[in-house]
Order: sequence, then structure tokens, then C-alpha cells
Amino acid sequence: MANASICTIGDEILIGQIVDTNSSHISCALEEIGVKVTRMLSFGDDHDEIVKNLTNELTHNDIVITTGGLGPTKDDITKAALAEISGSKGYVTHNGQLKMVHEILHARGLDVLDINKAQALVPDTCEVIVNHLGTAPIMVFRFPRERFGHAVTLYALPGVPFEAIGAIPDIIKDVKEHNALTDIFHKCVMVFGMAESALSKEIESWEDSLPKDMHLAYLPNPLTGVRLRLSIYGGSKEEEERRIDDAFARLKPILGDKIYSYKDDTLENAVGSLLRGTG
Amino acid sequence: MANASICTIGDEILIGQIVDTNSSHISCALEEIGVKVTRMLSFGDDHDEIVKNLTNELTHNDIVITTGGLGPTKDDITKAALAEISGSKGYVTHNGQLKMVHEILHARGLDVLDINKAQALVPDTCEVIVNHLGTAPIMVFRFPRERFGHAVTLYALPGVPFEAIGAIPDIIKDVKEHNALTDIFHKCVMVFGMAESALSKEIESWEDSLPKDMHLAYLPNPLTGVRLRLSIYGGSKEEEERRIDDAFARLKPILGDKIYSYKDDTLENAVGSLLRGTG
Repeated sequence: MANASICTIGDEILIGQIVDTNSSHISCALEEIGVKVTRMLSFGDDHDEIVKNLTNELTHNDIVITTGGLGPTKDDITKAALAEISGSKGYVTHNGQLKMVHEILHARGLDVLDINKAQALVPDTCEVIVNHLGTAPIMVFRFPRERFGHAVTLYALPGVPFEAIGAIPDIIKDVKEHNALTDIFHKCVMVFGMAESALSKEIESWEDSLPKDMHLAYLPNPLTGVRLRLSIYGGSKEEEERRIDDAFARLKPILGDKIYSYKDDTLENAVGSLLRGTG
Repeated sequence: MANASICTIGDEILIGQIVDTNSSHISCALEEIGVKVTRMLSFGDDHDEIVKNLTNELTHNDIVITTGGLGPTKDDITKAALAEISGSKGYVTHNGQLKMVHEILHARGLDVLDINKAQALVPDTCEVIVNHLGTAPIMVFRFPRERFGHAVTLYALPGVPFEAIGAIPDIIKDVKEHNALTDIFHKCVMVFGMAESALSKEIESWEDSLPKDMHLAYLPNPLTGVRLRLSIYGGSKEEEERRIDDAFARLKPILGDKIYSYKDDTLENAVGSLLRGTG
């Protein structure tokens, strides 16, 4: 199974002015294709910090995704750090991104300054996915096995949330093309009206009876109750989903109506569905 | 200046089901008393991961704050990892927290199970701050200089947001008592109607003229424009705030009405204040 680290670069997060929402969008998308996110990390706009942290993440993961640190006033820091880590001999202009810089700024009625044009300059060690939503390109660094002891790819995304989220489909497509991924299957039941501790006691023998390859997670949320999630890595979709359904069928006589949904749902939606007779 | 790392423990964050908002509340509070947050980190409910990651953070920081990983169904993992890291010889019941466990569960009309009582058990190497909002205690581990080459304190907070946020005043009080802190002074101006790149070019000579000990940060936000923040570490409040005000006074003739507020403000509030004549 491929594993991944998601890194957020920028002082805004560290000083608490902004909450990082990009990382959870990215991890949801990775999780869906069977990539295990092992760590999320935020660090500041500082050359040495970036080099030190990224080197460490590249050493321990198959995939590293960064967001942020590519704004026009700071792009030298992250880009230069990536150039250094990847042994770049110089920068090249990516014409597709340069065209996009012009289009975006013209559409906003802004002049194209040298500082804007510089955003289309990338280290000669990376591939580019054109960012259609902003001026900073999406950079893809594929490190050969020799560099970190295993093949690892780094994707550098812009930090602006709609640009980062907009880049996810392209990143996921690339990850799927370049990694031998194990499918992951999981389903959830939503339980309301029981504290996590009482629930854990109630379903103890059911939990102990689960097959070894089936993983149970308690995901408590004060607003929606406890989500119980069963996961299996590998196998065929039809077979594994049937096995998970069987396991939940054995849970039903234990918890009864305390299970209010078999979807990732809010309590309100589930109640709404019940009232409409569609639940 | 003391530096800090904020760690979030739990699979919920890594799989993207939950966005981590605790860390930004904690970093805001630390920033206000002059503690520099160098990293934020999330990792899973796994013994080896917890030991490896916390050992690394303790080695590089004066203060480590963890949230999460203390739920009744998983507390053994994080607590056992902390017991191991701190060389604990065993667990002791904290009577204040045990009393709280009873009070909280009785108030909710729930029975007190052994699994709940176990939450008041803590490694004999920690101090406890009673959590008045939940059943998991707040654990404080003070590592002597010999352990990691410098004195470092770890605060383990519960992950439930209102409990974690509720613990912040006690943590901040303790941090202030046990560290020689440098005051930090900073003020912001909010600029609207200019892209970050154009702004950077416009204020280039002003930026170059800033004193060496004054740090400028661009904090862009698509909804509120760019926040320019000037910070000084150390010195006297009156003097340093006057120096920052002077620097912003020299910025005023350059940016004029593009500065819409001298507070950390939303555009809507600033416009509202202007319309009411209170801005």
C-alpha cells in the first residue's frame, strides 16, 4: 500500500490566522483510492525548515503533497528549496503556465509584472501540471530510487484553497497512473445516543469476532454521534463489501435503533430521510 | 524565545473526516504570549508512530502540545506511549479527575464503567490539570535537561474541540510560569483591491527601509484582501508599538485608501464601521 504525507507550507497556518482545510480534502481523495496518509505537517516559510522537513517526509513516504509557499512574494523560498532538494541545474519557463498567468491577470484587468511572469519559471527537474485557477504552476518532482532509497513523488500545489482543491483530480489521476495501488473498501454505520465508552463495551464481543483483515475505527463527533467504520485493504470490491455488510448485519441485533444510518450522514439528514420514508 | 510544536493524534484527522481546528486556537494563544510555533503535525493512533513523532518533536522544541488520542476506547495507546517516553514506573489514579469523571457521567445520566474510571489513571511521571469539561485529564510531562538535551514540557490535551479549547487558559498560565518568554508585539493593516504581487512591488522601498528587527508578513486571504503584519520580538510594549505605528504611518502615503483597516477585521465589518462613521 502506498503511503503519503501532506505538508502545508506557510506562516499563516502556524500563527493560527488560517485553519488548514486543504489537507483534509486531499487526504479524503487519497483515502478513496487506497493511499494511506501517515502524517500531516505544517511548517513555516523558511528555506532551512522547508529543506529539512521535506527531506524527512520524502525519506519516509511514497507520495508527498505540499500546499502553499508558492505566492508571488515568497515563491523563491519553496521553489528554491525544491530546486535544491531535486538537484536542479536551473529554471525554465513553462509556456503553458505563462499563458495562463497572462490570461488570468488580463481577465482581472491587472498588468502582468515581472514578479507574475516569474511564477511560470520552474526548476528543470520537475514536470508541470498547469494550474487553470491561478498563476502558480503545480510542480511534480519524481525522485528516482537512488535519491531517498525508494521511488517517491512530490506534488507542490498552491495554497489558495480553491486552487489546491481544484488541483486534486489531476493529482489523483497522476498518483493512480504511477503507483501500484491496493483497493480499499470501507463502510460506516452512524450510532447515536451512546457514549464511546458504553458503545465500546456493548460491542466488545462483536469487535473481537471480526476477521483479522477487517479494521474497526471509532470516529466520534459531538454533533453526529459515533461513526463506526470497517475497512479492508485489498481483495475484490463485490466480495469485500459483502463481507463488511455481513459484519454490520451481525451488529444490528446488538445496537438496534441506535444505528441511525448506514451512510456518512448528519443526524439531521438521517432524521429527514426517516420522516420522508426514504431512509 | 521559546518555540513550540502542536501535535494532533488521531486517525479521524488523517483520513480527512475532521478538520483540525484545535491547533489554530492553540497557536493563536501561544503567539500572543510570544511563543513561536515552528510546526504542526498530525499522526495516527499507533504506538510506534506516537513514540517516534513525539520523541522527535520533544528533541526540537521547548514546548510540545498534543491534542487527541485520549478517548476511552483508545487511551491506552497515547497514554502508554507517554508513559514509555517519560520512563514511568506505573499508573496512579488522580482523585480530582476521578471525581470529575463521576460528576460528568452522572450529570449525563450515564453509569460509570471501569473504562471511564481508567481515564483518571495517569503515568506516575506527570502532573495533572483537571479537565472540567470531559473525562480525560490534561497531563503535563516536564522532561529534565538530561532527557532531550534541553528542558521541554509536553501538555497532552483531549481532542474534543470544546475540551481542548477550554484547556487553553490553564496551559498558557503554566507556559508563562515555566518559561522565560520574550514579549512579541505586532500590528496589522488590511489592504484591499491589490494583488499580492502588485502590492509587493508598490511597497518594495518601504519594505527595504524597515529596521532589521521588524518582521513583515504578507497574509493573503481571498475574502479580506492582504493583511500586512509587522512584528517585533522583545523590547518594551510602549516603545515597540510606537515604532510599528511609525512604520505604518510611512506606509499610509504609499497605499492611501487601499488600507481599509488597522484591525484584524473582515471587509464587511470595516465597511460597516466606515458607514457608521466609527472606522
